[in-house]
Amino acid sequence: MLSPVSWSGGGVHIIRQTLLPDREVWVDLKTVDEVAEAIRCLDIRGAPAIGVAAALGMAQAARLYAGNDSGELIEAVEAAGDLLAGTRPTAVNLFWAIERMKKKLSDLSGRDAVGIRTGLLEEAQKIREEDIAFCKAIGEHGAQFMPDKGGILTHCNAGALATGGYGTALGVIRAAVEAGKDIRVYADETRPLLQGARLTTWELMQDKIPVTLICDNAAGHLMQLGRVQACVVGADRIAKNGDAANKIGTYSVAVLAQKHGIPFYVAAPSSTVDLSLKSGERIPIEERDGCEVTSPRDTCFAPPGVAVFNPAFDVTPNELIRAIITENGAATHPNMAKELEEMVLSTSRA
Amino acid sequence: MLSPVSWSGGGVHIIRQTLLPDREVWVDLKTVDEVAEAIRCLDIRGAPAIGVAAALGMAQAARLYAGNDSGELIEAVEAAGDLLAGTRPTAVNLFWAIERMKKKLSDLSGRDAVGIRTGLLEEAQKIREEDIAFCKAIGEHGAQFMPDKGGILTHCNAGALATGGYGTALGVIRAAVEAGKDIRVYADETRPLLQGARLTTWELMQDKIPVTLICDNAAGHLMQLGRVQACVVGADRIAKNGDAANKIGTYSVAVLAQKHGIPFYVAAPSSTVDLSLKSGERIPIEERDGCEVTSPRDTCFAPPGVAVFNPAFDVTPNELIRAIITENGAATHPNMAKELEEMVLSTSRA
Repeated sequence: MLSPVSWSGGGVHIIRQTLLPDREVWVDLKTVDEVAEAIRCLDIRGAPAIGVAAALGMAQAARLYAGNDSGELIEAVEAAGDLLAGTRPTAVNLFWAIERMKKKLSDLSGRDAVGIRTGLLEEAQKIREEDIAFCKAIGEHGAQFMPDKGGILTHCNAGALATGGYGTALGVIRAAVEAGKDIRVYADETRPLLQGARLTTWELMQDKIPVTLICDNAAGHLMQLGRVQACVVGADRIAKNGDAANKIGTYSVAVLAQKHGIPFYVAAPSSTVDLSLKSGERIPIEERDGCEVTSPRDTCFAPPGVAVFNPAFDVTPNELIRAIITENGAATHPNMAKELEEMVLSTSRA
Repeated sequence: MLSPVSWSGGGVHIIRQTLLPDREVWVDLKTVDEVAEAIRCLDIRGAPAIGVAAALGMAQAARLYAGNDSGELIEAVEAAGDLLAGTRPTAVNLFWAIERMKKKLSDLSGRDAVGIRTGLLEEAQKIREEDIAFCKAIGEHGAQFMPDKGGILTHCNAGALATGGYGTALGVIRAAVEAGKDIRVYADETRPLLQGARLTTWELMQDKIPVTLICDNAAGHLMQLGRVQACVVGADRIAKNGDAANKIGTYSVAVLAQKHGIPFYVAAPSSTVDLSLKSGERIPIEERDGCEVTSPRDTCFAPPGVAVFNPAFDVTPNELIRAIITENGAATHPNMAKELEEMVLSTSRA
């Protein structure tokens, strides 16, 4: 199974997603700085994958500390967590994974340096394995919502490449295909960084799942033509009430789906839910450099010096979402908030 | 004033829009084939500009016929019209201009070859001059609908570059700015061919009208933020009931505008109205090569061999349009169809 981030023995093993689909380059990230930079530059992206990478990065920090002083080791790991927390603001899985590793660190504080190192690596690997298992569970819960036959629109990449493996939105699609459903995926190209064009098409073509690439602009027309029976996307942070932040343009897809009476689903592990935020308005939206818009892949698209507004995410209000699918089932209206909270607590208690 | 297509004495003088904004290259197209190819490859684009170019191309055909036989001359011009009619299917101004030139040809059929040549060139130049005058009138009628202060979203390029000069949607914006309104334009980049990123920003920056480039994906988020007070776009063909075909993605903008209670306007000369079509469903939608999506500006965006759906236009139903602004005023609900028809007849009678 394709897994974009794992532990290699020598470091954090990743596929450099910015080079896809032109080149398939795998590297071992040896330092925490390298992990942080890979998250920042989007070689590692997708909320769950970022969480896994941060956890492995903290385990790597423990490994890099050569001494035997538990206190110094703990400080080094905490500093690594703080560094990684500063990479990207929107995906909450990053902070969730760092918090979980810090809690583990605290639980291990009585151990010697070797014990702490071992315990942290085990915890990071557990986060990764759980993420894959959760994606499979999301797929199982979500497949029932997919049409037996028809077109499914997805935005950005919420696939194997965005997770430990298997994917959230694409996990739902994979599970539906495995269940024998006759599905064609429509992949929004997802400007500016083209995760749909570069990554979603690539991983679905590898799995021989039928996929058609469209410009983000064509989603409405495709719905007018009756070719879309469901939409399914991932999420970077979900507020307590079900409002969901995801890649810029997701909100437009949701509004179009509503206009056409097409169900719109969000698929994400419960670690994406931020119960501390009552609604989506408070989710911090990362704004990225305008050159992503004006010069994608180093090609000039616009006049020099043009003003650019480049938000990386938007928030889809819960009323546009038919169901939020997590590893523990589907949260639906009218009790979406309550069901969502129960799913979060159910996993955190386990 | 910037005019993308005119008569140079030696041929059809155009700016090669596919090279903008990197290079500003003006050329004289000497043959009808060259004019047809320039339309096909989008060196000339924008419904009104395509109409002007076709008219000038037919005048050029008359000029290229070196003999004195009126019958042969008429045949050559008619063949040129047929060739030009095959270049692109959606913009009705193309067919409107060709029909008008054919009617002029028929009116001139009693004249000698010199008289026909002269008459056709005069008619083509009249079409161009009228188009500029109509754009100015559209601007005057449309400016009142623009906010005194605020953001105006536009999609694709319905500017000077899409017309004889001044522009339709950008004509409305220019007139609003000339009237002292404090406006910032948000230009959708308009994938796949980036007419917004490459052309709208370029011509507005030349006129020092504040413009911010966004990915098409960011339009919904921008509206959520309250930064858009009106949307104005051009059209390639408007059916009798006001349904309007325009660049792919326009429909999405209209749906988003409706969701946010933002008025959405269409600005076009009455030659864009096709009274023969009762509604927009019958407007032929051009589908273009997938490489426009996968390899814009020769840069690879997607895996080789991926399936692509690349419609060039979509249709916005009249109920999403607050007003259609032509040279004769604004057609609004509840009598949009009737007002539209009166505006078409008023110009064709003049």
